[in-house]
Amino acid sequence: MKRLVNDGYDVVEEMLEGYCKANSEYAELLEHDGRVVVSKKRSPESKVGIIIGGGSGHEPLFLGYVGENFADAAVIGNINTSPSPEPCYNAVKAVDTGKGCLYMYGNYAGDVMNFDMGAEMAADDGIRVETVLVTDDVYSSKNIEDRRGVAGDVFVFKAAAAAAAKGLDLDQVKEAAIKANNNTRSMGVALSSCTLPITGQQIFEMEDGDMEVGMGIHGEPGVRRAKLEPADKVVDEILGYILEDMGLDTGEEVYVLVNGLGGLPVMDQYICFRRVSQILEEREIKIHKSLVGNYATSMDMVGMSITLVKLDKELKELIDYPCDTPYLKF
Amino acid sequence: MKRLVNDGYDVVEEMLEGYCKANSEYAELLEHDGRVVVSKKRSPESKVGIIIGGGSGHEPLFLGYVGENFADAAVIGNINTSPSPEPCYNAVKAVDTGKGCLYMYGNYAGDVMNFDMGAEMAADDGIRVETVLVTDDVYSSKNIEDRRGVAGDVFVFKAAAAAAAKGLDLDQVKEAAIKANNNTRSMGVALSSCTLPITGQQIFEMEDGDMEVGMGIHGEPGVRRAKLEPADKVVDEILGYILEDMGLDTGEEVYVLVNGLGGLPVMDQYICFRRVSQILEEREIKIHKSLVGNYATSMDMVGMSITLVKLDKELKELIDYPCDTPYLKF
Repeated sequence: MKRLVNDGYDVVEEMLEGYCKANSEYAELLEHDGRVVVSKKRSPESKVGIIIGGGSGHEPLFLGYVGENFADAAVIGNINTSPSPEPCYNAVKAVDTGKGCLYMYGNYAGDVMNFDMGAEMAADDGIRVETVLVTDDVYSSKNIEDRRGVAGDVFVFKAAAAAAAKGLDLDQVKEAAIKANNNTRSMGVALSSCTLPITGQQIFEMEDGDMEVGMGIHGEPGVRRAKLEPADKVVDEILGYILEDMGLDTGEEVYVLVNGLGGLPVMDQYICFRRVSQILEEREIKIHKSLVGNYATSMDMVGMSITLVKLDKELKELIDYPCDTPYLKF
Repeated sequence: MKRLVNDGYDVVEEMLEGYCKANSEYAELLEHDGRVVVSKKRSPESKVGIIIGGGSGHEPLFLGYVGENFADAAVIGNINTSPSPEPCYNAVKAVDTGKGCLYMYGNYAGDVMNFDMGAEMAADDGIRVETVLVTDDVYSSKNIEDRRGVAGDVFVFKAAAAAAAKGLDLDQVKEAAIKANNNTRSMGVALSSCTLPITGQQIFEMEDGDMEVGMGIHGEPGVRRAKLEPADKVVDEILGYILEDMGLDTGEEVYVLVNGLGGLPVMDQYICFRRVSQILEEREIKIHKSLVGNYATSMDMVGMSITLVKLDKELKELIDYPCDTPYLKF
């Protein structure tokens, strides 16, 4: 057990209390629902409400992206568990300004069920809520709509939030999110499991010195488990899957994210990024901008994922749109 | 071995290459010295040059704080090893604009020796270089001047960099750094060792389920090693040492940093911050602002440190002064 927590059953509440204290200019908990983090930097003008969420344990996803020109609210579940329908509904009630809301989250069955129930409850109040599922994890299914959402979340949320901030209507905001999702691909590698604070146990077994290519952020099985290989070789394999799936042409432009899963040193993240940039350069694919860091984690999991977003003028403008949150400031 | 690297001997060069590519609007390597990261956002006006540095393995310290109104250059050593005198000197030659330069780094013997030699080389060229050592690690010695520098680095660097950005002269900038250091106290806890990429070995032995209170970021011995305790109890102990050493009075104001050492989940960092804020509230000490995150790490070490900075009007203004770097944007 290498976690610094109190009672394992209190981790989410204690984290949320600490988070809202440390970032009190950005976020607060709803008074009547301690699982809804609401932005204190919401626009005074009426706009489409941007609501993100999912299980805990992936911080700074989701709460870290609540702020100005980004998410208006994040709905927080237990570790690796969907939030229940009630807070999904409460988030809508808190941030809707008459233009409806967009739910965005990674494509996991529990989240889909509960957010959908939240949307139905809002519909009963006459509030229109649309949903866009993030499905960027290349290896998780042949069919894009069946894929899981991983670190690509950040770009899909960002594009839609910018569209909302620009005053577009719910259909247009939803279109922006769908377009960003269609243009975003991710894949990861895990070198370790992660530790559940309640049991103190790892969520799955992994030998020291092994890696699993393509593993999901909840430990979903990947392409293969093998002895750890050099970083460049691992990047070559993962990026190979992404590029094959994406079909990028020479001259096209991408946003790159090398995302640490929680326990991977910053040093290793940049060593991986170096190889990503070499490969893209060889293929004459232009890197517009890059992010390197822990953007969507799995607690203490050692590993990383690579995300590419294929850009056009519209997506570039949306993703580059200014925002101010504790974990992303553009 | 849970590191994603290539040849262990290449980690620093590969990291620097990746870093400067990913953050190409902020930083570049000196053409003739690949161990000096220079800001691309330096002021067009003449100002005191701010140079920080030390061994690698503590990222985002030091390179992550090179940018606008912060460090003009960072000098990069091998892992846990001081940079040699030549790059310390080359950094001065690169950023001096006639007003002299200030070296700032944590108080470690190797760094002191080599930066001092760099300063002598610069003196031979007629460039004045002053030095302020960061000595914030409360437990490392009874005498403040003998203490090690840990995460408090960030505040000392920040205060001096702001003074330089405001156009103050070298003596005044040095005074600001000394004042910030005198007002800054830190202490940490480690739950694990960290992995050297060359050997694949841990730098020291640590049983799973143990903790060492007061450990340094290179594994220097702490107060005590014991079975891991609940987060609140650990925070109570560490913050107790800091508060005793600092002698804060009711009504005083502090900046708080809860710093992850590399492998500690974001969730746990906020659980620790929650307790810090509770204790300060009980003591009627006001939190001006807070940072929670990985600001000074020890690669994959699981653990955290707490830093408090006692503020007055001048220090508050300096630390809050706007800056723009990859890892700190105010």
